[in-house]
Amino acid sequence: MRIYGDRISGNCNKVAFTADHLGLAYDWIDIDIMKGQSRTDSFLSLSPAGQVPVLELDDGRTLAQSNAIMLYLADGSALVPADPYLRAKMWEWLFWEQYSHEPYIAVLRFHMAYLGRPQAELDPDRVARGYAALDLMEQTLDQPDYLVGDDLTVADIALVAYTRLAHEGGFELKKYPAVRGWIGRVERRLGIA
Amino acid sequence: MRIYGDRISGNCNKVAFTADHLGLAYDWIDIDIMKGQSRTDSFLSLSPAGQVPVLELDDGRTLAQSNAIMLYLADGSALVPADPYLRAKMWEWLFWEQYSHEPYIAVLRFHMAYLGRPQAELDPDRVARGYAALDLMEQTLDQPDYLVGDDLTVADIALVAYTRLAHEGGFELKKYPAVRGWIGRVERRLGIA
Repeated sequence: MRIYGDRISGNCNKVAFTADHLGLAYDWIDIDIMKGQSRTDSFLSLSPAGQVPVLELDDGRTLAQSNAIMLYLADGSALVPADPYLRAKMWEWLFWEQYSHEPYIAVLRFHMAYLGRPQAELDPDRVARGYAALDLMEQTLDQPDYLVGDDLTVADIALVAYTRLAHEGGFELKKYPAVRGWIGRVERRLGIA
Repeated sequence: MRIYGDRISGNCNKVAFTADHLGLAYDWIDIDIMKGQSRTDSFLSLSPAGQVPVLELDDGRTLAQSNAIMLYLADGSALVPADPYLRAKMWEWLFWEQYSHEPYIAVLRFHMAYLGRPQAELDPDRVARGYAALDLMEQTLDQPDYLVGDDLTVADIALVAYTRLAHEGGFELKKYPAVRGWIGRVERRLGIA
């Protein structure tokens, strides 16, 4: 199988982290989003939405959306809880990540680190919503080691991808000791510390 | 089980459509988001993110995020493809819905229909992105009857919830015959036509 992605994208790295953790073999095809390579006709034929990452199976079928790709790769593995309720809590975090975390923390990182916008000029509403996401994670991780159940799941990989890079979007993690402890724990599990 | 939701919210109706289609028994608890009832301490104890809908199981455990709740309710039913790739395509649409459809089509509907903003004052970037989402759906639905495989899945229910109300957000569906045909088909399957 092939993964089309850009290493600057946490959404792409999520998929690589998952495949690597599961020991799956794949070819990585670099798509430079800053050079418009996710908007070419050949890329749009793989991914009509023009978004990275994309998974291409050996038979040519494709799959988009980072969290859907992770769930597909991890299906039946220890990264997906067998218990139906815990599995649903994992899904809950995955949807929350795409709706209430990524549009603020990942997008502001992109604005600062890649578009070169000064921190003082970032959209204050996005800053506030990013901190609200971190607040909810801190509250959740106050006691448990992982977001769902007792062990690493796809939810941790999805959330760690941009949370570990939040400082690149101007977010200050000093007030978030539980989040920082969890980032280190997940990074060690993934071998990316 | 109990579903906490607001009938003006497509995200809440998705969950009701799914439960009704599956013949599941539940109590519906109205949460009036316009009156701030999703921000009270008692509601935040059910849903720390302060979002509707929330599912409360008979043992008190809770689940948030409309698409996660639908997947939980539909687990093992005909609304979820047995084939791993088709199941993953269903997930792909669910994540796309929350990232690339709901923030434009549902949010502009909220701005127009509930906050009373004139259509001419809607955010033009959100309008363009909403139409881009409709374009992708039209392209996808040109031939098949449903978004994934040959039959109704959770993806159709998730996407129909706000697409059928897109006109309330100022979106004109005349140019989208395949989408309109699909809306009617899904509505008839759900008994909500």
